[in-house]
Amino acid sequence: MTANPIRFGVVGCAEIARKVARAISLAPNATLYAIASRSVEKVQKFAATNGLAESVKVYGSYDQLLDDPGVDAVYLPLPTSVHVQWAVLAARKKKHVLLEKPTALDVAELDQILEACQSNGVQFMDGTMWLHNPRTANMKQLLFDKVNRSVGRVNFIHSTSTMAATPEFLESNIRVKPDLDSLGALGDLGWYSISASLWAKNNQLPTTVAALPGVTRNAAGVILSCSATLHWDQPHQTLAIIHCSFLAHTSMDLFIGGSNGSLYVKDLAIPYQETCASFDFTFGAKFVDLHIGWNVEPEKVDVATGLPQETLMVQEFARLVESIRDSLSGPCAKWPQISRNTQLVVDAVKKSIDLGCKPVSL
Amino acid sequence: MTANPIRFGVVGCAEIARKVARAISLAPNATLYAIASRSVEKVQKFAATNGLAESVKVYGSYDQLLDDPGVDAVYLPLPTSVHVQWAVLAARKKKHVLLEKPTALDVAELDQILEACQSNGVQFMDGTMWLHNPRTANMKQLLFDKVNRSVGRVNFIHSTSTMAATPEFLESNIRVKPDLDSLGALGDLGWYSISASLWAKNNQLPTTVAALPGVTRNAAGVILSCSATLHWDQPHQTLAIIHCSFLAHTSMDLFIGGSNGSLYVKDLAIPYQETCASFDFTFGAKFVDLHIGWNVEPEKVDVATGLPQETLMVQEFARLVESIRDSLSGPCAKWPQISRNTQLVVDAVKKSIDLGCKPVSL
Repeated sequence: MTANPIRFGVVGCAEIARKVARAISLAPNATLYAIASRSVEKVQKFAATNGLAESVKVYGSYDQLLDDPGVDAVYLPLPTSVHVQWAVLAARKKKHVLLEKPTALDVAELDQILEACQSNGVQFMDGTMWLHNPRTANMKQLLFDKVNRSVGRVNFIHSTSTMAATPEFLESNIRVKPDLDSLGALGDLGWYSISASLWAKNNQLPTTVAALPGVTRNAAGVILSCSATLHWDQPHQTLAIIHCSFLAHTSMDLFIGGSNGSLYVKDLAIPYQETCASFDFTFGAKFVDLHIGWNVEPEKVDVATGLPQETLMVQEFARLVESIRDSLSGPCAKWPQISRNTQLVVDAVKKSIDLGCKPVSL
Repeated sequence: MTANPIRFGVVGCAEIARKVARAISLAPNATLYAIASRSVEKVQKFAATNGLAESVKVYGSYDQLLDDPGVDAVYLPLPTSVHVQWAVLAARKKKHVLLEKPTALDVAELDQILEACQSNGVQFMDGTMWLHNPRTANMKQLLFDKVNRSVGRVNFIHSTSTMAATPEFLESNIRVKPDLDSLGALGDLGWYSISASLWAKNNQLPTTVAALPGVTRNAAGVILSCSATLHWDQPHQTLAIIHCSFLAHTSMDLFIGGSNGSLYVKDLAIPYQETCASFDFTFGAKFVDLHIGWNVEPEKVDVATGLPQETLMVQEFARLVESIRDSLSGPCAKWPQISRNTQLVVDAVKKSIDLGCKPVSL
């Protein structure tokens, strides 16, 4: 633990809050300072169930937590529909904002949040954990660094983010409720595949986005399953396919095919194991004489994770907050930009779905 | 070797003829009887270079080979544009027809071939080798048999068939010449991904097919790279994405995602090794508590190939021919049907490309 760790307040007791509360407690430059729910009983039960230290303050309202001057930063695991309300308020109270994805119902809402963060000089970051895994940095080298063996020009990206939701989830989870998380599987899972596609294109926005046939919605109109293409025509043609679903067996893969090599990850958003993550890298593959085999097989690259990826996310966020606190720099613009581009593409997929799969230009 | 093997004539000395001539020589119920080229010098050189037995007849014209009464069956590794001409002629000469893929420039041509085969009582099969790999049968069990652990309802299919063509290939190979193989990468490589998608849907035709943005053609208009979606709306929604290219690093993968499990193959059309092929099978995957890992990782299933897949193709074809020769049955309708459906989808992708990516109903 560093001498003066960033004090986190967790606003809401959603399931994901358990994971991030643990991540905060594991991060060397962060400490779990307070947690709030809309009822004091609920937050006390959460604290007891998850073995939080006695020193963690518990609040029966979000406002109370935001008014606590001891809170440096908040993590907001709230339903998407109330992100704008609480993230803007947190920023106005000078709390740095770590916001669960999807960041908002649309980019107009996100822009309100980003504007509030900017004008109050606080850091913004969304909760896309896999971006902080060391595996991601390792793959990035093979994509963008001038290494001898690299993927080359990226032509094709493919990513699935699916999970077989239980009947209970499909009945009552906030992520299938139109008033809470109207983006459904697109916001919850599609976000990962979209962020992965943008990441593989160095955060360049696609030229056009189009939903593909076969969208499934529940009776209330929330998206349970959809697919889309993202197309870049500059500086060269790249096509990404994303597929997300609450109605399919769990899958979290990412394929990136380039001119010289390819990357394949099977467990992108949530690695199989906490301590090590791997990917396949294939380079210079050709068929041998007579086309009865290949000259190479994919190389499995193992990357030790050290701390869990969500802890690394908290650590990176806290590092940026420390830098602002200690007047070493202003807020970092990279993470808000990544969030905004992801939200823009989520919006475009949604719009294309509403238009019957017509292409949407960005 | 069986007592009375099927005597093959190979019509043409293309590169792929070397592979299939070897396959014929390895198949226990087949024998390489004759080979023809348009010039006697070329065929003699081919025979010498590939160490063909002295007993193999060499012909300086395709007609001479087709007129040889000793030839039971022909393998036709010719440019696609002349398939209809030579396959129809072979059928009329009562030769069974093993035809390289793509089967024809369009389904109208293929129908001429199939009609000629049917009316002359000869077997037809196209040269899609991977369908004959024991791995394929093994995966099929997990897709269609009532096994306890199966993929379940197939929701999503993804397949790439790409290879980085050399500058020489892109300049002069028959597969990029509009008068020889105008289907280009779609016919040569896309055929695999389309056949894989149909296979995963038990040869059911999709409802609609649409090309995706980013089609690349050469100066003569031949397709060098394209992608497409295949959509089935009955008995449930299934979406397949196919991607083929002469301009990307070699990739031959197939992902099949279902309601209960998924299959993933990295080397579909040409396995890495001749003697063994593998695939990943994931079943019942869930995230563990706190979503910090998975309950299972993909299971690698290794399948011993025995004979190379192209030999198994020749063996299966020869078995069907034997059955006809020995009056045990008429031609088998399964293989022509698979070819025809594949060609229908190839045609639909081509049509959609020509229509600027508009969906085409089937």
